[in-house]
Amino acid sequence: MSGAEAAELPIYRARIQPEWIDYNGHLRDAYYLLVASYAIDDLMDYLGLDAAYRADTHCTLYSLEMHVHFLNEVKAADDLKVITSILDFDRKRIHAGCTFVCSRLATPAASVDMMLMHVRQGAKPAGATFPDAVTAKLNALKLSAAARDAFGPLSRQIALKPR
Amino acid sequence: MSGAEAAELPIYRARIQPEWIDYNGHLRDAYYLLVASYAIDDLMDYLGLDAAYRADTHCTLYSLEMHVHFLNEVKAADDLKVITSILDFDRKRIHAGCTFVCSRLATPAASVDMMLMHVRQGAKPAGATFPDAVTAKLNALKLSAAARDAFGPLSRQIALKPR
Repeated sequence: MSGAEAAELPIYRARIQPEWIDYNGHLRDAYYLLVASYAIDDLMDYLGLDAAYRADTHCTLYSLEMHVHFLNEVKAADDLKVITSILDFDRKRIHAGCTFVCSRLATPAASVDMMLMHVRQGAKPAGATFPDAVTAKLNALKLSAAARDAFGPLSRQIALKPR
Repeated sequence: MSGAEAAELPIYRARIQPEWIDYNGHLRDAYYLLVASYAIDDLMDYLGLDAAYRADTHCTLYSLEMHVHFLNEVKAADDLKVITSILDFDRKRIHAGCTFVCSRLATPAASVDMMLMHVRQGAKPAGATFPDAVTAKLNALKLSAAARDAFGPLSRQIALKPR
């Protein structure tokens, strides 16, 4: 990936709050997802799905599914940044990935992937097609096949024994 | 499942905090996982993996992987309870499931499954075998094959098109 492309990937920098640390002495599992959720808020702003767009159109993103792999312990003193990737998308949905990076660690702290749907809210919320400008931005951000293969670990069926 | 067995399943009742509601007017995705995380704290107490045990043994549970399906919107005024199930376990790991129930809804609000590992903390945290008393409780709680088949939706690979 070129430097120019890398610069396009949205990066969210989290400030770990003291109350996010659990009795095990590290970031409680759910707060990884809160950080990912804030990273997706930034992605929405970047794509133009921001507060003004939501107010104008009553359209927003809903989370359908999320999967997280916890790969390393994150401590109270750690910095934490989240690199958000577009793994895939169609007319109404985005398959997004988040890689959690700590400067203390040689490998990612966590990996998240999720399915998001563009929804028009109302009495009966329903999937809605992305505006062309959003589709163009998604297309520019979408990972190459090689970068997508390198992303991970991805979601999978959780089980003690493969079936 | 008999009434006696059903009564054994740990149930966690959440109080939805106002700051957990996002700009879409419902429970922000990550807070479903925070509620699941608190439900697992209760399960740990139930299994005897409580604060005293953790202080005595330096053993605790680490989350390895979590997957959530968001099935219904949850609003600020909703009650929310989480039924925790033991889907499977081995000497060191638990495959746990959480079903999110709102009295307003005819079907679950969300379904989570996760892999947890019993770990001895220290300079180099490592997987540790469960004490026999914990294994006995896990065995008593473990879902029957039929109940396990009825649990869900379970984790899976998230993708726009099946590969």
